[in-house]
Amino acid sequence: ANSVLSSYGTTIFEVMSGLAQQYGAVNLGQGTPEGLEPQDIIDCAARHMTSGPHQYPSMFGVPELRQAIAAHDQAYYGLDLDWRSEVMITSGATEALADCLFGLIEPGDEVVLFEPLYDSYLPIIRRAGGIPKLVRLAPPEWAIPDQELAAAFSDRTKLVVINTPANPCAKVFTRAELTRIAELATAHDAIVLCDEVYEHLVFDGLEHVPVMTLPGMRERCVRIGSFGKVFSITNWKVGYIVASPLLMQAIAKTHQFITFTTPAATQQAVAWGLQNRDDYVRGLAAQLSVRRDQLSAGLAGLGFRPLVAQGTYFLSADFSALSTLPDSEFCQYLVREVGVATVPISAFYVDRPGLEVPRSTIRFCFAKTPQAIDTALERLAKLR
Amino acid sequence: ANSVLSSYGTTIFEVMSGLAQQYGAVNLGQGTPEGLEPQDIIDCAARHMTSGPHQYPSMFGVPELRQAIAAHDQAYYGLDLDWRSEVMITSGATEALADCLFGLIEPGDEVVLFEPLYDSYLPIIRRAGGIPKLVRLAPPEWAIPDQELAAAFSDRTKLVVINTPANPCAKVFTRAELTRIAELATAHDAIVLCDEVYEHLVFDGLEHVPVMTLPGMRERCVRIGSFGKVFSITNWKVGYIVASPLLMQAIAKTHQFITFTTPAATQQAVAWGLQNRDDYVRGLAAQLSVRRDQLSAGLAGLGFRPLVAQGTYFLSADFSALSTLPDSEFCQYLVREVGVATVPISAFYVDRPGLEVPRSTIRFCFAKTPQAIDTALERLAKLR
Ligand SMILES: CSCCC(=O)C(=O)O
Ligand SMILES: CSCCC(=O)C(=O)O
Repeated sequence: ANSVLSSYGTTIFEVMSGLAQQYGAVNLGQGTPEGLEPQDIIDCAARHMTSGPHQYPSMFGVPELRQAIAAHDQAYYGLDLDWRSEVMITSGATEALADCLFGLIEPGDEVVLFEPLYDSYLPIIRRAGGIPKLVRLAPPEWAIPDQELAAAFSDRTKLVVINTPANPCAKVFTRAELTRIAELATAHDAIVLCDEVYEHLVFDGLEHVPVMTLPGMRERCVRIGSFGKVFSITNWKVGYIVASPLLMQAIAKTHQFITFTTPAATQQAVAWGLQNRDDYVRGLAAQLSVRRDQLSAGLAGLGFRPLVAQGTYFLSADFSALSTLPDSEFCQYLVREVGVATVPISAFYVDRPGLEVPRSTIRFCFAKTPQAIDTALERLAKLR
Repeated sequence: ANSVLSSYGTTIFEVMSGLAQQYGAVNLGQGTPEGLEPQDIIDCAARHMTSGPHQYPSMFGVPELRQAIAAHDQAYYGLDLDWRSEVMITSGATEALADCLFGLIEPGDEVVLFEPLYDSYLPIIRRAGGIPKLVRLAPPEWAIPDQELAAAFSDRTKLVVINTPANPCAKVFTRAELTRIAELATAHDAIVLCDEVYEHLVFDGLEHVPVMTLPGMRERCVRIGSFGKVFSITNWKVGYIVASPLLMQAIAKTHQFITFTTPAATQQAVAWGLQNRDDYVRGLAAQLSVRRDQLSAGLAGLGFRPLVAQGTYFLSADFSALSTLPDSEFCQYLVREVGVATVPISAFYVDRPGLEVPRSTIRFCFAKTPQAIDTALERLAKLR
C-alpha cells in the first residue's frame, strides 16, 4: 500500500456519519444539507435521465453547463471567461482538487495552506509529491499571522491553496487578506488554487471575493466550485473548475485519466438551475443564516461559546465550560451518549511540535431542518 | 504543470469523438454503445432521482448495490465476498483504476503491463511514481511472449495490470495465460489488478476468467468493473472495485480523497438492474456479436483484414491492402474525408527503440446501431 495515503485514517466525515447512523444521533457532523433541495432542478434531472443521452459527453462537460458557468461568473464576479477553454466540469469539487493538485504539482514543489484545512488537501498534496507549508489560524478569530504567512513562501512555492468561505472555520477571507496573499503569490510566481465551494454561502452582508478578480490575478488563479453546495444536492457530485487556458490544459490532462467525465443528466439540470433559479442561488444564504442563528443562540443558552460563522454550512463552538475532554473524545461522547454528531476541529490540524492544536472547539453543521436543530439542542441540554 | 501528465496529449477517444462531431462522421471511434440502453433501468434511475435522497451516501457506495455486486460475483464466479469490506463503488472504472494505482504503488515500484494498453494506465502509473514494465503483444494473434513476460517481473514488481477482455485488442485471456501470470505474480509477491470492465462481453462461447477465481489468488487480486459497460450507459459513471479487506483499505483511503463518493440514484438503478435484469446481462454479448459479425463481414468485403474479436466492443482490422498511410494518418483521413471515426491502434503503444509498433491496424467500435454500421460501411466503400 502507498505509504502516504495509508498513513491517513478514514475521513472524519464518513466516520462521524457512520456513528450518527449507528447510534441514531442527529447528524450535525457531515455537511449534508437537509430540506433545502430545489424540487424543480431535481425534476429537470429526472427528465434528462429519462430522455438521455446516456453516453459519454465531452470530458470537459456538457456545453450548456460550461456556458452557464461562464454567464454566472460574468454576472456575479465580472469575469469574462471563454467557456470552451476556461471551464471544465468535474465529478465534484473533491475530484477538481485532485485534478489540480496532481496536474500542477511537480515533486518537490511547495504548497502554502491554511490550517484548519479541509481533509483531502494534505493527503493529495503529499501523494502528488508536494511539500506542504502550513500557516496556522486559531480560534476564535482565525486571523492570519502575517509574518508566518510571508515566511511560508519561498522560491520553491508552486501553489497557495485558499478555501474561502472556509470549511471548517467559517471564515470569509477579506479583500485585504486576499490582496496580501495575491501579492505574495505574485512575488513568488505561485498559482493560487481557490476552493470556493461555499461561494454563495456568505452571511451578514459580507462579500465573497474570488482571488481571480483581484488585479493581475486572472491568469494566476484556479477557481473551484461545487453545485452540491450551490443547490444543496451533495450526492450529485457535479463540480467545476475555472482557469486560464494554460493552467486548464494541465488540469484537463489529469482529469481525463482520473474520472474522464461526469454524468450528463445532472449537468443539464444544474445548467437549467443556473439559468432559471437565480432566486435560489441568491436566497440560500438568507435561509441558512436563520438556521445558523437558531443553532448559535441555542448553543449559547446551553453554555457553549459559539464562534462567528461568516459563511459555509458550519458553526464552531467552544465547549470548555461544559467539558474538559479533548474535542475528539467529546465528539465521541456526544454521538454515543447524547445523540448528536459533530466534528472535532482538531481533525483539521496537523500535530506539529511546539504548536498548539485547538482541543475544545467542535464544528456543527446548521444546514439542517429547524426541527433537527431543535432536537439536537434538546439533547445537548442534558450536558448542563 | 506536472511534467508527467503534461507530457501526454488529449485522450485519443476525446480527440476522435470531437473530430467525428466536427466532420459529421459516423462515430465508430469511442466505445459509446448505441441503441442498447435498458429503458427500465433508466426509468428506475429517474424515479430515484425524483425521490432522493440527494445527500452523500457512504463513500463505499449504497449498501443495495454493494450487496448486489457480491451476489453477482457469487452467481457468476463463485466468489464469496463480504460486501461491507470487499466491495466499493467508484465514479466509473477510470476512477477505480486511479484509486488502485495511487493507493497501491509506492514510488519506485514496478508495474507489469501488456501493450496495446488502455490509455489511462501509463500516465497514472507514472504519476504515482511507478515504473512501467511493458510486455508487447502484436497483431494479429496478440499472443503473450512468455520469455518477455517472465523477464518483466523482478523483485521490485508490485503490480501486474491485466485487462481481460482487452481493449483495444479484443483478446480474452485464456485460463492458461492467466494461470501463468498468476504464477509469476505469486512468485514475485505482486498484486494483480484486473480491469474487467468488459466481463460480460465475451463471444463465441469463450469464458471470462477473473484472476481472482484462480487457486491462491483471492487475496492477491483487485477486480474492477463498470456498469457503464454492463448496462450500456457509459455516462452514468458507476464503477466498482472488489478486493480483499487489506487491499481495499489502501484503495479506499485513496478513493475518499479522489471523489469521495458517487451519485446515489444511478447506484440504486444499477442495483435494481443486477437484481432484475440478468436477462440483459446475459443477453448483451449475443446482441453485440451479431453487430461484430456485420461489421467484420462488411470490412472484409471492402478489402480490410478484420482480426478476431473475442470480446469487448471493439474489432480491429488491418488496412494495408487499402492504404500505406500510418494508422494515425489513415484515421485522420477516414474521419475527415470518408466520414467514419475510428481509433489508431498505435495510440495504445509506447514508442521504444528497437521495437515495432503496429502501424496498419485500426480499431472500430461495433456497439452501434446496425444502421450506423451500414452507413459506415457504405462510406468506407469509396476507399476501394
Ligand atoms: C466529502 S464529505 C464532506 C462534507 C463536507 O464538506 C464537510 O462535512 O465538511
Ligand atoms: C473514457 S473514453 C473511452 C471509452 C473507451 O473505453 C474506449 O473507447 O476505448
